[in-house]
Amino acid sequence: MAIDLTNDPSIQSWVNVPDQSNFPIQNLPYGIFSTATKSKRAGIAIGDQILDLVEVASLGHFNGIIDEAVTLFSNEILNPFISLGKDVHKKVRSTVFELLKEGNTALEGKNVLVDQNEASLHLPIQIGDYTDFYSSEEHAVNVGTMFRGKDNALTPNWKHLPVGYHGRSSSIVVSGTPIKRPHGQKMPPGAEAPVFGKSTRMDIELEMGFVVGKSTELGETVPVDKAEDYIFGLMLFNDWSARDIQKWEYVPLGPFLGKNFGSTVSPWIVTLDALEPFRTKGPEQSPTPLPYLQHDVPATFDIQLEVHLKTESGNEGKIATSNFKYLYWNMAQQLAHQTVNGCNLNVGDLCASGTISGPTKDSYGSMLELSWNGQEPIQVGNETRSFLEDNDTITLKGFCDNGELRIGFGEAVGKILK
Amino acid sequence: MAIDLTNDPSIQSWVNVPDQSNFPIQNLPYGIFSTATKSKRAGIAIGDQILDLVEVASLGHFNGIIDEAVTLFSNEILNPFISLGKDVHKKVRSTVFELLKEGNTALEGKNVLVDQNEASLHLPIQIGDYTDFYSSEEHAVNVGTMFRGKDNALTPNWKHLPVGYHGRSSSIVVSGTPIKRPHGQKMPPGAEAPVFGKSTRMDIELEMGFVVGKSTELGETVPVDKAEDYIFGLMLFNDWSARDIQKWEYVPLGPFLGKNFGSTVSPWIVTLDALEPFRTKGPEQSPTPLPYLQHDVPATFDIQLEVHLKTESGNEGKIATSNFKYLYWNMAQQLAHQTVNGCNLNVGDLCASGTISGPTKDSYGSMLELSWNGQEPIQVGNETRSFLEDNDTITLKGFCDNGELRIGFGEAVGKILK
Repeated sequence: MAIDLTNDPSIQSWVNVPDQSNFPIQNLPYGIFSTATKSKRAGIAIGDQILDLVEVASLGHFNGIIDEAVTLFSNEILNPFISLGKDVHKKVRSTVFELLKEGNTALEGKNVLVDQNEASLHLPIQIGDYTDFYSSEEHAVNVGTMFRGKDNALTPNWKHLPVGYHGRSSSIVVSGTPIKRPHGQKMPPGAEAPVFGKSTRMDIELEMGFVVGKSTELGETVPVDKAEDYIFGLMLFNDWSARDIQKWEYVPLGPFLGKNFGSTVSPWIVTLDALEPFRTKGPEQSPTPLPYLQHDVPATFDIQLEVHLKTESGNEGKIATSNFKYLYWNMAQQLAHQTVNGCNLNVGDLCASGTISGPTKDSYGSMLELSWNGQEPIQVGNETRSFLEDNDTITLKGFCDNGELRIGFGEAVGKILK
Repeated sequence: MAIDLTNDPSIQSWVNVPDQSNFPIQNLPYGIFSTATKSKRAGIAIGDQILDLVEVASLGHFNGIIDEAVTLFSNEILNPFISLGKDVHKKVRSTVFELLKEGNTALEGKNVLVDQNEASLHLPIQIGDYTDFYSSEEHAVNVGTMFRGKDNALTPNWKHLPVGYHGRSSSIVVSGTPIKRPHGQKMPPGAEAPVFGKSTRMDIELEMGFVVGKSTELGETVPVDKAEDYIFGLMLFNDWSARDIQKWEYVPLGPFLGKNFGSTVSPWIVTLDALEPFRTKGPEQSPTPLPYLQHDVPATFDIQLEVHLKTESGNEGKIATSNFKYLYWNMAQQLAHQTVNGCNLNVGDLCASGTISGPTKDSYGSMLELSWNGQEPIQVGNETRSFLEDNDTITLKGFCDNGELRIGFGEAVGKILK
């Protein structure tokens, strides 16, 4: 087998990749796009362009790898492609890498590229089930401290299992989709009865989500050391949260209407293959988890994360800087836990990390933490914010960068409408 | 418009409907079936037969009602049919009623009936999102009393909103599918650290679920007095629960692995049209709910419910008798609440009621309550049970019966495998 050069930072593409681009030839993330003249279809981001996989397929470049590749990539979702499995994904990756490599002229003069500015990007997968974990110790401690006091900040189970719950799939939307401020029941401090109205404590949660790449049968379990075989790739994930609604509703069965009015994902799915150079170890885990969760190998990735806020009047600022590697529980552990009872997975299921907070105040992944429950409003230009105001726009950004190579996720953008 | 006679108890079918059958001509529930020679397709239960809707369509009986009816009913799920809306459902109901009515010979000699004993029944819908409510006051009080004491039995929000949470869609299976006893983390009483092993507190939850019949857009709300327009029909629902796993994991974000290893639905969806003669008022609600939940009209149905347990050694018994009408929150309120924040619905979403317990000990809808947390084991023949043992089979049954008319749901059956 040939040596895999798809992570080699010295290789360039003949497609122009601007400095600081998220999408060099070593990335090759998958998405679904359309243009004024092209119906929804699969594409790969490269520099400022999108490689139209239907066009590439029609030239026969996936012959021998995928049957009916034109039909496959003409789907409005990536699920059928993802279902083909890791071997096919790797072959497509190396084929596209070869085609886009400097010096390769196979696509010369072919109509295979679309300017990203001329394309609409769509939700790339049909999401069956969506799980939201709660895997950042810093976030759990911060929230626990605010609501239960420092001594009871972490619930007794937290260090023994990756706490998670099921969320709403239907309301997961792609970057750029506006989010309407939800109405709901709230119990104001000191009130005797709940009131109905707009949420006044609108928040974000800086998260990442992984896309399940392989289905399992009901009753089947996925061992922790095989779990990455079941992960296709990652996206940025903003788990919008209405804290006032959430607080009143969530005991005893967990969050519901405080969350399910919308979640925003970035449009491109970055594969584990592209992230490989940034693999790293997560935090030490103490106490040692039960054997089915023991995975003491580098199983997370050094992904720098940012939250940007822009107000209606034009003030803007980076309000948080965090990193995926801060998470206490890694994806393999999350997935092993999710299936240890035999719960079955489907391709396209999405598992989000939970808010990714870091150790310092500027690394907290929610307004709730950044403003410490509204007690310490943060500065955005000449305005302050405890929670989100109408027409505020939040942009999540994520990228790996080791000086030689930058693998980015793009953005997950959402504006709060009144 | 002609008078709707489809609920008239005096009308008989030319298909033999045995005494005490669940499926008289006034019921006409939808399901998906297959046989040795017929691929999966839509059917309607009548007596102990199934009316093959593909065959009826091929005879042209749905002309003018449904375009491409043969293709539509050849789908492996009912979602495309359900998406056509209530007007079409009503026309199909009256057409099938007319065709099956005593004296009608249009289907005579046609190959449109299949013996239920010769058919396999399948999960009839593709479920997008599944919500589980917690709408029985008796159940919530029982469980709350056991775990938090009598004075804190109901959480403060319980009488103000229909508490609910999102569950797992992928593991919802049709009646007859065995359920494997799950493994997971448990914290034994008095232990210092959790242990891993099989659940030893396997339980059922006697529930009903409604199938969403009409989609909404993100941001759209469904008023409580229009909510039934968004409900296609009902099924029996067994929300299998591993109490030991659930207890350790569920704080603070709700049930997860204690539930998502499997839920069982009955194969037939009974429409609201068929249930109309059994419409009734639910319990008085005090305090009066907020305006968006006010719905002081008969909005529930008198559906008698039973739980039967059969042990491996052949002992069997009816262990609980309850009624859908006991639920404090009705389906219209659940659906109005679910969408009040703009959360969008898809056709095929499933909303389950939560355990339906009644006022007396023999009407509790879970083993947890029936055995009062294991303190008062129940008798099944010459055996006792606190929770389920390996190879126990649970059968949920449901039917409306007013002496003149019996509209049944059939059964939701599941056997616990070790």
